[in-house]
Amino acid sequence: MDGITCLGKQIIADLYYCDEKLLNNLDHVRRIMIEAAEKANTQIIDHKFHKFKPQGVSGVVVIAESHVAIHTWPEYGYAAVDIFTCGNRSMPRLALRHISQALKAKRVRYREVERGVLKHVQLNESKIFNARLS
Amino acid sequence: MDGITCLGKQIIADLYYCDEKLLNNLDHVRRIMIEAAEKANTQIIDHKFHKFKPQGVSGVVVIAESHVAIHTWPEYGYAAVDIFTCGNRSMPRLALRHISQALKAKRVRYREVERGVLKHVQLNESKIFNARLS
Repeated sequence: MDGITCLGKQIIADLYYCDEKLLNNLDHVRRIMIEAAEKANTQIIDHKFHKFKPQGVSGVVVIAESHVAIHTWPEYGYAAVDIFTCGNRSMPRLALRHISQALKAKRVRYREVERGVLKHVQLNESKIFNARLS
Repeated sequence: MDGITCLGKQIIADLYYCDEKLLNNLDHVRRIMIEAAEKANTQIIDHKFHKFKPQGVSGVVVIAESHVAIHTWPEYGYAAVDIFTCGNRSMPRLALRHISQALKAKRVRYREVERGVLKHVQLNESKIFNARLS
């Protein structure tokens, strides 16, 4: 487990000044989120999207590596995006770039958070790291 | 919008030293996540849970206020929990407390993140705040 410090990594992104119509388009949001999960090289298990009245879309793509989620506020040109991955094969920043471009975000603020920091975890070296991805 | 500084609030919690068997029990995890969403006074829209082989559970409860998600690593006694809510009526800390107790977590580390900070948002006072919850 050389160099690995955590079980998962999460990108928490705030997308500002997006295209209001795109943010409110359920089919568009669903499509770009699935594409984003694919671009991040993750394995899609399922997805669930919902359109709110009078506006807004929420959706989650459940992936083997955790999840990719979005919540949009078209009235504010805003989308909250979370990209939670584990393992070394996924590329969450590619997912963020795709979503940002596809929503025409003019400002993106994001942070990366380590989840399941190994120094706090019950280490058991006999068990395989990332067995859930095997 | 007096006193309101953001559109959403997210609790990002790492639960360490949980009960390994409970973390790996799909039915248990699903039940406590739904209960957690209810305790937080949120409106459940749908949920999706998945059991990994050889171990681990992932699940998301989509709520009108955003989402409640969990990913478990039984082999490390660890669960990653995200509770993303918007509006003033939800009580996400109650959800976190319920999940932590139900998984018998001995150590919980969490942070609270503001999402959609209003000073960055396209403000349009003529539109209703949190219209998606109306």
